[in-house]
Amino acid sequence: MRAVDIIQRKRDGEELSADEIDFFIQGYTRGDIPDYQAAAWCMAVYFQGMTHRETTDLTLSMARSGRQLDLSDVADVVADKHSTGGVGDKVTLILGPMVAAAGQPVGKMSGRGLGFSGGTLDKLESIPGWSPELSTQAFKEQLRRVGLVVAGQTEDLAPADKKLYALRDVTATVPSLPLIASSVMSKKLAAGAHVILLDVKVGEGAFMRTLERAVELAEIMVAIGKLAGRKVAARVTDMNQPLGRAVGNALEVKEAIATLRGQGPDDLTRLLVAEAGHLLHMCGKVASEEEGEARARRTLEDGRALAKFRAFVEAQGGDPTVVEKPDRLLPKADVVRPLLSPRDGWLSRVNARTFGEVTVHLGGGRERKGDPIDHSVGIVLAAKIGDRIEQGQPLCYIHARTETEAQTAAEALLEAYDWSETPVAPPRLIKRTIR
Amino acid sequence: MRAVDIIQRKRDGEELSADEIDFFIQGYTRGDIPDYQAAAWCMAVYFQGMTHRETTDLTLSMARSGRQLDLSDVADVVADKHSTGGVGDKVTLILGPMVAAAGQPVGKMSGRGLGFSGGTLDKLESIPGWSPELSTQAFKEQLRRVGLVVAGQTEDLAPADKKLYALRDVTATVPSLPLIASSVMSKKLAAGAHVILLDVKVGEGAFMRTLERAVELAEIMVAIGKLAGRKVAARVTDMNQPLGRAVGNALEVKEAIATLRGQGPDDLTRLLVAEAGHLLHMCGKVASEEEGEARARRTLEDGRALAKFRAFVEAQGGDPTVVEKPDRLLPKADVVRPLLSPRDGWLSRVNARTFGEVTVHLGGGRERKGDPIDHSVGIVLAAKIGDRIEQGQPLCYIHARTETEAQTAAEALLEAYDWSETPVAPPRLIKRTIR
Repeated sequence: MRAVDIIQRKRDGEELSADEIDFFIQGYTRGDIPDYQAAAWCMAVYFQGMTHRETTDLTLSMARSGRQLDLSDVADVVADKHSTGGVGDKVTLILGPMVAAAGQPVGKMSGRGLGFSGGTLDKLESIPGWSPELSTQAFKEQLRRVGLVVAGQTEDLAPADKKLYALRDVTATVPSLPLIASSVMSKKLAAGAHVILLDVKVGEGAFMRTLERAVELAEIMVAIGKLAGRKVAARVTDMNQPLGRAVGNALEVKEAIATLRGQGPDDLTRLLVAEAGHLLHMCGKVASEEEGEARARRTLEDGRALAKFRAFVEAQGGDPTVVEKPDRLLPKADVVRPLLSPRDGWLSRVNARTFGEVTVHLGGGRERKGDPIDHSVGIVLAAKIGDRIEQGQPLCYIHARTETEAQTAAEALLEAYDWSETPVAPPRLIKRTIR
Repeated sequence: MRAVDIIQRKRDGEELSADEIDFFIQGYTRGDIPDYQAAAWCMAVYFQGMTHRETTDLTLSMARSGRQLDLSDVADVVADKHSTGGVGDKVTLILGPMVAAAGQPVGKMSGRGLGFSGGTLDKLESIPGWSPELSTQAFKEQLRRVGLVVAGQTEDLAPADKKLYALRDVTATVPSLPLIASSVMSKKLAAGAHVILLDVKVGEGAFMRTLERAVELAEIMVAIGKLAGRKVAARVTDMNQPLGRAVGNALEVKEAIATLRGQGPDDLTRLLVAEAGHLLHMCGKVASEEEGEARARRTLEDGRALAKFRAFVEAQGGDPTVVEKPDRLLPKADVVRPLLSPRDGWLSRVNARTFGEVTVHLGGGRERKGDPIDHSVGIVLAAKIGDRIEQGQPLCYIHARTETEAQTAAEALLEAYDWSETPVAPPRLIKRTIR
């Protein structure tokens, strides 16, 4: 078998065998197949696509390229949840505690933010002392004892994906559905969860801009998971405007704590109850999604979800009193200033991508891997799509390090809004469910 | 400017500017842009193509990547001729002496054979002592004195092409018309000739399998040459069966000498007179192609073409008596055995590619760059498409190192033939002329 022949077959639109894919992926991981051949192959995949069977074989091969966690000795069923990335997406911070509080262990490996899209680890690191660095043994021990873990990806998890992702980033081959799907799913499979709920974001603030592509990506990932013997479902959810009201690391943790306390924004709470109910049903903890939703809602009402979050923070070295005193413990920006609406109307557009990009420029995100970030900065929305707003009322509050940076942010954010003279319906959050 | 953005723009089917192309090519040549980005870019070009303007800018950029010869101090007009490669293609060995004998200097840089396609330098090296290694000064001096030079490409000629070609070879991006055209033309432009006649081979024994693709390649190359200020024309010629009767290095030199003596096969002689006439007219030596053809034919009849070949061989260190005693001086194979026709009929197929591949297996060509070759081996055809043949008559003669190798070759060659029960017209050699 020769790498060049495999590239050529894909270039010509042929279906690669499992052996050919594995030869290519393991060879690339070992360094026997050089970057330039992998780059040409990725571009051929970009143009010719892959069947679900090929994508599954690619995913399994990438999962096999490193260590694979086996969590069966911890619990019969371990749940995981993955979002394809958006703006203001603090779902993991709330869903994990809710599901764990309902008796279902959740073990998750998470990533950091890059570009306009935030990362769960960055958000949690707003909490003094909290750390994502856990040995496999510590991961399992915490999963057993607390029922909830969020760790950073270890170096030996799907190394093929790490190498391939870095390569795709510099060869303009990121936006290929089979490559995106296999990248996500290889890490999920290697991380050992039995049940996986995927949240595929769609809209202006997501990598998938159209519903069609988002649904296709969701379908591919669900197909991979099933062919790999896991229980997987996906929801395609709106990411045209930020999720909830807070964007920025500490601001999102604060909103997550409020939501766990039952005082979160309506749209966010509704989405979380639906997702938690779905996940509990997938894990076999309840007889129906409706029953799951009722049970999930109760964890918010009776304080168990908040208590689980507290225990989870403490288990990973964080100060648990953040739950009682978020304002005192979380980092705060020096400058907070409102952005006032220049006109009356119903908000018809609140472009999530702009919010993500402005947060990066405020210092709360990173352009390049490894850049330091400021956890305190960000934006809190005062109004969302469908809301009636009068001239001079605040659209949002900018949390910045300096007046100048706040001013620059304000100018950019104004471009993110559109107003309508007639009432506008708020967008449906859940657009599609793929089981 | 960033390489990844240029890859992305080409991936998305956009037209690159001259500056973008030059940034990419010079950056790649210097090593600032790595192989993996160039590989992804080549694959994007494979899928999205290039306009003639882009291809010309690419060619000029590649030509500029190294030293560019200026031959204006040697002669007002220097002619060059290039073939895209075929089987039994000894045109350069005959055309060069004819045109030079007619008073038009020919200065040419040539390559070696790879795969089923032979190379002019390998053929000439059958002649004891002959060497393609000339300094620029020696090249110019011989061009001035003899009027004919065939040299190897110097390392500093279009280094971007050398690097890119090696990369394309291992990334399945060879068969892209803009990349093929720019590879050929960048070397031609850098080598300094003012008038260039291109011979684009089409058929089973050529890289271009269909007339449509061959014509497209010819048109691109002619367009590039014109946009670059040179006089360029192209002929698309048949390469379904080998050209002439001999395939193999020394065997082809022997056939070339016979043709220069006026005793060559008809089809080969006709093609050469036509091409030489065309080239002489392009160079302004004659008023019409017909006049050029007449003058070219005379160089064969009065011995001037043969004398020019003799002087050329001697100038580059070769033994000139090869012209009088080819059988004594050229290397000869130990075994010569006929392949007999298993049936009666008119020959309808004599697959040139098989002849090329069998010659490689006999030891007369190379699979990989740098492989040593045996100049003595090859095949001499006794019949060609359209010829009537009886069972038991020889189809061809195999020149091999051993009986076993001859036997293996015979079995493979038999697959190259088809017979018809009704008369078959021989293929037209010149299929299209692009001016």
